[in-house]
Amino acid sequence: MPLDPPRLAVPGVLLTDLYQLTMLQGYVERDMLDTAVFEFFARQLPACRNFYLAAGLEQALDYLEQLHFAPAELDWLSGLGLFSPVFLDYLAGLRFSGEVQAMAEGTPFFADEPILRITAPLPEAQLVESRLINLLHFQTLIASKAARVVLAAPDKRLVDFGLRRAHGAEAGLLAARAGYLAGFHASATVLAGAQFGIPLAGTMAHSFVQAHLDEAEAFEHFAHSLPQSVVLLIDTYDTEAAAQKVVELAPRLAAAGIRIQGVRLDSGDLGAHARRVRGILDRGGLNGVTVFASGNLDEYLIHRLMVEGAPIDGFGVGTHLDTSSDVPALDCAYKLQEYAGQPRRKRSEGKATWPGRKQVWRRYDDAGHCCGDSLMLEGEAGEGLALIQPVMRQGRRLAPSPSLQAVREYTRRQLDSLPPALRDLEPAPGYPVTVSETLRELAERADRLVGRG
Amino acid sequence: MPLDPPRLAVPGVLLTDLYQLTMLQGYVERDMLDTAVFEFFARQLPACRNFYLAAGLEQALDYLEQLHFAPAELDWLSGLGLFSPVFLDYLAGLRFSGEVQAMAEGTPFFADEPILRITAPLPEAQLVESRLINLLHFQTLIASKAARVVLAAPDKRLVDFGLRRAHGAEAGLLAARAGYLAGFHASATVLAGAQFGIPLAGTMAHSFVQAHLDEAEAFEHFAHSLPQSVVLLIDTYDTEAAAQKVVELAPRLAAAGIRIQGVRLDSGDLGAHARRVRGILDRGGLNGVTVFASGNLDEYLIHRLMVEGAPIDGFGVGTHLDTSSDVPALDCAYKLQEYAGQPRRKRSEGKATWPGRKQVWRRYDDAGHCCGDSLMLEGEAGEGLALIQPVMRQGRRLAPSPSLQAVREYTRRQLDSLPPALRDLEPAPGYPVTVSETLRELAERADRLVGRG
Repeated sequence: MPLDPPRLAVPGVLLTDLYQLTMLQGYVERDMLDTAVFEFFARQLPACRNFYLAAGLEQALDYLEQLHFAPAELDWLSGLGLFSPVFLDYLAGLRFSGEVQAMAEGTPFFADEPILRITAPLPEAQLVESRLINLLHFQTLIASKAARVVLAAPDKRLVDFGLRRAHGAEAGLLAARAGYLAGFHASATVLAGAQFGIPLAGTMAHSFVQAHLDEAEAFEHFAHSLPQSVVLLIDTYDTEAAAQKVVELAPRLAAAGIRIQGVRLDSGDLGAHARRVRGILDRGGLNGVTVFASGNLDEYLIHRLMVEGAPIDGFGVGTHLDTSSDVPALDCAYKLQEYAGQPRRKRSEGKATWPGRKQVWRRYDDAGHCCGDSLMLEGEAGEGLALIQPVMRQGRRLAPSPSLQAVREYTRRQLDSLPPALRDLEPAPGYPVTVSETLRELAERADRLVGRG
Repeated sequence: MPLDPPRLAVPGVLLTDLYQLTMLQGYVERDMLDTAVFEFFARQLPACRNFYLAAGLEQALDYLEQLHFAPAELDWLSGLGLFSPVFLDYLAGLRFSGEVQAMAEGTPFFADEPILRITAPLPEAQLVESRLINLLHFQTLIASKAARVVLAAPDKRLVDFGLRRAHGAEAGLLAARAGYLAGFHASATVLAGAQFGIPLAGTMAHSFVQAHLDEAEAFEHFAHSLPQSVVLLIDTYDTEAAAQKVVELAPRLAAAGIRIQGVRLDSGDLGAHARRVRGILDRGGLNGVTVFASGNLDEYLIHRLMVEGAPIDGFGVGTHLDTSSDVPALDCAYKLQEYAGQPRRKRSEGKATWPGRKQVWRRYDDAGHCCGDSLMLEGEAGEGLALIQPVMRQGRRLAPSPSLQAVREYTRRQLDSLPPALRDLEPAPGYPVTVSETLRELAERADRLVGRG
């Protein structure tokens, strides 16, 4: 692999909400440059998620390290007529100089638990809100969905097929990353291989079969063209007839030294087709040829196929993974928790937050399963593991990021540590998260500070 | 505005599925370079969509015009060990040299109606599948959702607030475009202003209020900092108390020549708060101050607020717009319809397609409402307007693209031309789309060609 593989370009600092810039101008004008603490967290879990899986920190840190306004961006902003020359000068010199503390990617978390804290001068901490949420929300969303698929089919080969219906370029790319992190084995998205070293997989499309007048000829042609990876799509016209053609083709290919690795089903009753196709392949002596299924799959359909005992060796999951279709957005937020040494919190109806710098402590039972979390103030002595750890200081990473492979392995152990009920697709009883007395007292103090104690 | 405003970088050609490249190698090896015809269309409408709204053509044409493999991309592909030097040489010279025919952006369409046709040498037409779907699917998805919001609140100011929970960078940017095209008035996403000239809007965040110890001081400070656009967020602590503070602040600001334009509500029962806040403002002589609402809004909630007569002048719509949350993906496809002059179609269960090059004819009644479409073969004489028109030849646009303003205006007229039942949020009776006899005969011929007539 070359040293500098192709990457998706990082979008500039203008990928933000207008109000970040107008608020920043207000802060800068009044010299409100004291240290602010913001935390990113998600609110209540939807019924079809027993846990969230933290993801996206790596891209968030990249963003913070690269944050700056290019001359063309300042020039364009100047043309809006909203910003003063003094403020634009301030932006020209702005870099992210703060601290980040975070939960490791691949850690399960629950409602109200922060997974990232920014401690920085107020304008810096404010400016980064929109893109930090955009990055952390999406990968957490997809990793949380992918983990469910992985838990539903722990012994199956799982491949991300979702690029085409992912929401744009970056969604396709980062969904491949989030899926792989959560335990998927490969992605069809080539750029995900180039940028993240994710193993690539792919079979063939119906158009390849259709472009040939004869289906068997299409299979033979494909096998000769890509002898390393012969997986044949057999549902273009008649699945079982095509499986028979595969059986007839196999000896001719074997004579040429080519082994058929698998067949793919993509429509109809996948369980029924898989059983018939498995029978045809086995009777034809092709016991080693695997059956791979795709086509509108999600964790529920995969679970049903597994329960039925469908002879399927792997699944391609596309749309439902890359859009997290049953929960296409999480109720998450990035909120000011402290400014100039004083706790802050919002009290809007149904959206009140816990103020201050928080730590999440996680306890484990004798079986190694986590059994309860405590949300405490930083510095309070909790029990178990402290999940929020420093990762960036003065705008620079404290250590090189772990490899995606290492994150994936860590995630596997984290999923293993979940209590069995949480690993199930069915809604589990709520995981216990307690809030420390000190934190409750701080919330009252924060309210008194704004005259509502 | 400078001549060259900041833009999101276009992702490279590796944003594709691996199988496109492996199939291409097969085509090139066997000299299967004849003309192929692919069409992009969506299958059945979900119950909560009465029509789709075509969008994304502009980005699709950009992609086709810029398509090429850079040396670093070829180098990386070579390292995979899957591709022959001959094939990599072919890729080095590959450009899109074909034709595109398409429905104009902003045109409503229905199940099985193509909105884009590619006519090109098979490898070119095949390669572009993944990214073309990725681009057309997403903007069509969001424009179709946005149109519902626009139809639910035709006289209200509508602003896209969705960047943070959009699925990544490109989703945030292109959702702003699709929303604006469908009739939204502005977006909070700064890059959408820079790249597409979309009007920007924004108010303030809770953190701005929280960073001040006194809410009224925060309001006054914000107004002085951005006197052009004073919209105050009043739900951080107590909505009605904050509205009273706005009344008290107004004369002081007026003395400084600053007019408060509006207040924003973001939580609780928006209708009830709006009525109380409107009363407080009016009693305080602030009849001209508008009330803007946001917070988990979609077309149904907005419709309910409108029916209740809530005194709200505009809505910020975020997550539900940018993720099309009730339908986060469309069942759409890009399928081979003809190769080397012969019709092709897929017959997979539940996914059979109509072969050949198709035209969509739309008829209108005396009231100017469209009243029925005919799906016909190109060249058949239909009734009404032919919606599929040439836009690219030999890989180059036939004419400069219309401005986004012009597309938005066209879209407004198109939405006006929909029958009233289709403009409603409730499911409408199916819009009549007939399939011509000639097309049905071609489908039979395509089946006979592969021995299944």
